[in-house]
Amino acid sequence: MFESAELEHILSDEEYQQAVPKLREALLAAQYHLLDHQDRSLLIIVGGVEGAGKGDSINVLSHWLDARHLEVHALPLQPSDEECMRPEYYRYFRRLPPKGKIGIHFGSWHSQLILDYAFHRISRNRMDAALARVCEFEQMLVEEGWTLLKLWFHLSKKKQRVRLKTLSQSKQQRWRVSERDWKLLKHYDRLAQVSSRALRETSTGYAPWHIIPGADPNYRQITLGRIVLSALNHHPQSASIAPPVTLLDPIDGYPLLRQVDLNHQVKSSEYRQTLEKYQGQLNLALRNPSFQDQALALVFEGWDAAGKGGAIRRITAALDVRFYRVISVAAPTETELRYPYLWRFWQQVPPVGHVAIFDRSWYGRVLVERVENLCSEADWMRAYKEINEFEEQWRERGVVILKFWLHISPEEQLRRFKQREETGYKRYKITPEDWRNRDKWPQYEHAVSDMIDRTSTEIAPWTIIAAEDKKYARLKVLKTILDRLNV
Amino acid sequence: MFESAELEHILSDEEYQQAVPKLREALLAAQYHLLDHQDRSLLIIVGGVEGAGKGDSINVLSHWLDARHLEVHALPLQPSDEECMRPEYYRYFRRLPPKGKIGIHFGSWHSQLILDYAFHRISRNRMDAALARVCEFEQMLVEEGWTLLKLWFHLSKKKQRVRLKTLSQSKQQRWRVSERDWKLLKHYDRLAQVSSRALRETSTGYAPWHIIPGADPNYRQITLGRIVLSALNHHPQSASIAPPVTLLDPIDGYPLLRQVDLNHQVKSSEYRQTLEKYQGQLNLALRNPSFQDQALALVFEGWDAAGKGGAIRRITAALDVRFYRVISVAAPTETELRYPYLWRFWQQVPPVGHVAIFDRSWYGRVLVERVENLCSEADWMRAYKEINEFEEQWRERGVVILKFWLHISPEEQLRRFKQREETGYKRYKITPEDWRNRDKWPQYEHAVSDMIDRTSTEIAPWTIIAAEDKKYARLKVLKTILDRLNV
Repeated sequence: MFESAELEHILSDEEYQQAVPKLREALLAAQYHLLDHQDRSLLIIVGGVEGAGKGDSINVLSHWLDARHLEVHALPLQPSDEECMRPEYYRYFRRLPPKGKIGIHFGSWHSQLILDYAFHRISRNRMDAALARVCEFEQMLVEEGWTLLKLWFHLSKKKQRVRLKTLSQSKQQRWRVSERDWKLLKHYDRLAQVSSRALRETSTGYAPWHIIPGADPNYRQITLGRIVLSALNHHPQSASIAPPVTLLDPIDGYPLLRQVDLNHQVKSSEYRQTLEKYQGQLNLALRNPSFQDQALALVFEGWDAAGKGGAIRRITAALDVRFYRVISVAAPTETELRYPYLWRFWQQVPPVGHVAIFDRSWYGRVLVERVENLCSEADWMRAYKEINEFEEQWRERGVVILKFWLHISPEEQLRRFKQREETGYKRYKITPEDWRNRDKWPQYEHAVSDMIDRTSTEIAPWTIIAAEDKKYARLKVLKTILDRLNV
Repeated sequence: MFESAELEHILSDEEYQQAVPKLREALLAAQYHLLDHQDRSLLIIVGGVEGAGKGDSINVLSHWLDARHLEVHALPLQPSDEECMRPEYYRYFRRLPPKGKIGIHFGSWHSQLILDYAFHRISRNRMDAALARVCEFEQMLVEEGWTLLKLWFHLSKKKQRVRLKTLSQSKQQRWRVSERDWKLLKHYDRLAQVSSRALRETSTGYAPWHIIPGADPNYRQITLGRIVLSALNHHPQSASIAPPVTLLDPIDGYPLLRQVDLNHQVKSSEYRQTLEKYQGQLNLALRNPSFQDQALALVFEGWDAAGKGGAIRRITAALDVRFYRVISVAAPTETELRYPYLWRFWQQVPPVGHVAIFDRSWYGRVLVERVENLCSEADWMRAYKEINEFEEQWRERGVVILKFWLHISPEEQLRRFKQREETGYKRYKITPEDWRNRDKWPQYEHAVSDMIDRTSTEIAPWTIIAAEDKKYARLKVLKTILDRLNV
């Protein structure tokens, strides 16, 4: 969930000052529109890491809005005496904003759950049942006309430590840091893992979570303002449960992929040696009896001409042909269109002891189908959760899932396209569609970034492979598989 | 879930023969329409009690339809070897009917779960998590354009025993009864309780369960045909998750309420004595220290002039004024309309140690709001599950919930209306609205019947009170409360 949020997102003071007036004006106008119409209510849920600037940001936001029509509640983790005498959701119901108003809740039905599970006070099944209750409650709110905007303020572990240190060294700010904050920092990894799953499980099409990078105050504030504005301007059609906010392009135009260091290279001699070694190890690992109750699913996505096919061939070279299958995924056939989009992939789930390699995959729904408008926004927004659920089920049955995004620069792609056109036996590999896709590079960058944020999980992680050098990419893919198989 | 299904539903052979030709014709036309358009698929899930005629009925149905475009699967409880090698839902995905076709599954993702939980092989939390997965899967199917029709064939315990006995005494039919059937009969009550909860939890607005009374073959068959026809004729708007089948009026026009014996009477002398005794017992029970971590919520619904107010006063006479509250529920105020419909009732949840008495209640959504079209069908259809969930939460916090439907005949109502008009101090009690409601008696009968079927639960049961004699009704209400409190 937090991949993009951990990037260096920075907005200069100048850019900030420039953005604010227009944003404030638009926010106020949208707030009054809501107030006049009273047909909906906006409920903003604020969660996240300590020190990520939740309080500061919401303070500023409340100055930007008309605070008289804003209801801010800080929900303490422990319910009050009065609340203890009543059922759990009483405390949430009594704080719902009425139609026409905006409510902001610090903490929510998610917070206590995340802590309880992180500190092993409840079982996994109890957690899952409670998360399902959360989804039902949220779906009911949405169907009753509430717009739910769920915001998670994130800081990396390193940044959180620095932040707490800086605060506690400042005489004016020292009070902000409590014993508890330091304690939670110690459990950062566990909390991040549990939060990430809880967020994913409750990130539905109609009420997705949005992660706000907490490190840079300017960036954080403008991002918050833009998301709230977008949610205020959301006018769902009746009986439709569409997402309240389209996933916004980061304001600094800095998606995940541009961070990738494309300079990795491997020499030919080293490549041959290492390749052979890795292939041998992979072959051994899959012949190990312990693999007989497991399976392996490898997903390859990436830019056209990024070298998916070549990387796949270097893997299959190490496998026994009886136990693997390469599934090339193109646009669905007429038959496949007569089933739910995940159906054709369910047909290809590897049985235990087998390997399935997907050359493109079910991620088509949130990549090409999203970018080319082949399905509605509501459809691809709900797909993130559906896909996570699908992979979680595969994982439960022993399928080890690894997902690779093969990344190259647009320049390198152009070079390869031209080369393909010039080489007779490669000419079939380049089509007018490839050129069209290339024109949509920025939209794809955005879609890939959202995909990785929303579907890179502990059980089925994405690995971005720097593929500018094909040899490096092939070795890196093999090494990632070996690491995951604990070779 | 099974209240209406346990009534004596009978259709004569003559009525049956008369209904069939038209039904068959309509079914075939609808099936070909689906086949021509290929925009949806109908998946019929068949579950229920052994001996309730599932097989026979589906056999006949498949003769009525064009069997070439029908895919019938009998899902064995145990997955095959091939399926065991793959994740759980593989077996369901591979059997999905494509768009344009009708699929019928005997057994489904619910069956194994119900048995596992009934025989204590999985925990309650595990069950809840699995049921949530079922709902997610079904919602995905619906959003992908599948119409889901979930049918549960029911037989009462007594009828099931008779049926198994009859079958095993017939030479031709003996093979139909297995050891397992007799074993399941032994666990009838436990299975009924667990099935009933599983059905409720997965009876969503977009994919509700329909109970088919299994005792009379004619009635069962025609009911099945009508429901399938209705589902085939269902054309959802895109992005809307509306229920596939409006809850059908029973073909024999025999709703739940007409079964009630209204002849009960109590003599005045007996009434006074018993009333005093019951009130004393109730008072004692609520002063018992064991009640301090519990609460009591009493819900009164019923026909206009059925005597709700009088019954409530006989209860409050036994209570300490500091610890109870009577909540009269009328049409929501302007303020209340600005919140989700359950909000105003959450405000009134009794804290532990307290009693809340609702004179009308949250059931307005599935009664007056349904009958008067004050909300959409999708809204009141999803309300059953929302209400069950709401009451389950109250129950978890110790709130004992009892729900009463005060029942009188239309003739008695007329008598009381007239009496009210004639008695000066009672005149305010009768309004033009009461007369209007009276005109919609049959619609209300249907709505009440569905309400009781879908929301009478172990944790919050409905009791239908014969209220033709007010004295009898008042005593019966008190006695029901005392029984529930284990006095």
